[in-house]
Amino acid sequence: MNTLKPRWRVLHGEIIALGPGKVDLLEGIGQSGTIAEAARHLGMSYTRAWNLVHTMNACFKAPLVEMERGGTGRGHAALTETGRAVLALYRRIESESDRAADPAWQELCQYLAD
Amino acid sequence: MNTLKPRWRVLHGEIIALGPGKVDLLEGIGQSGTIAEAARHLGMSYTRAWNLVHTMNACFKAPLVEMERGGTGRGHAALTETGRAVLALYRRIESESDRAADPAWQELCQYLAD
Repeated sequence: MNTLKPRWRVLHGEIIALGPGKVDLLEGIGQSGTIAEAARHLGMSYTRAWNLVHTMNACFKAPLVEMERGGTGRGHAALTETGRAVLALYRRIESESDRAADPAWQELCQYLAD
Repeated sequence: MNTLKPRWRVLHGEIIALGPGKVDLLEGIGQSGTIAEAARHLGMSYTRAWNLVHTMNACFKAPLVEMERGGTGRGHAALTETGRAVLALYRRIESESDRAADPAWQELCQYLAD
């Protein structure tokens, strides 16, 4: 009933380069191969998803998501090498911080109502 | 220019028992000895601060903030022993998770634009 949730944000100046929503989108694009499918799965409009991808791409030295235009690949999107590395590093931040937070969290739980 | 910020949330069922705003308020009450002063310092209305205190108190086995009513102590508020312990544990979650996240964060920084 009591849970601890982190929301890590990577700020590039005042812009949120990465946060839980953007990273879930990144993961969804990697899995589905399209922005539209990833957006649908997250209950997000295509326009919103496209804007989040655009923001992410602009905050990094190289784009995280590559969009194919025209031809048979039309509508397809894929994570770049940078995108895959950044996704893995964000997930590592989450898992390593969860592990480090656990002892204090267990103590805190003793104070919380059931 | 690039920064990593965690926002740890403690959920009691669906209620946010603790988050960055509530914890800053707790700290402010501990320092100033009144809800009004702590709220002002955080740019928050007294009503909002009072509601946040009420929510926090309800999520724990014992209240985190004790309000004195009437007499010379009127308007004063203080952290209880539970309040001080919970505040310290939340700050420990933040600092230990920051430290644990740092290696992956340093790697991620290399991908971010300057």
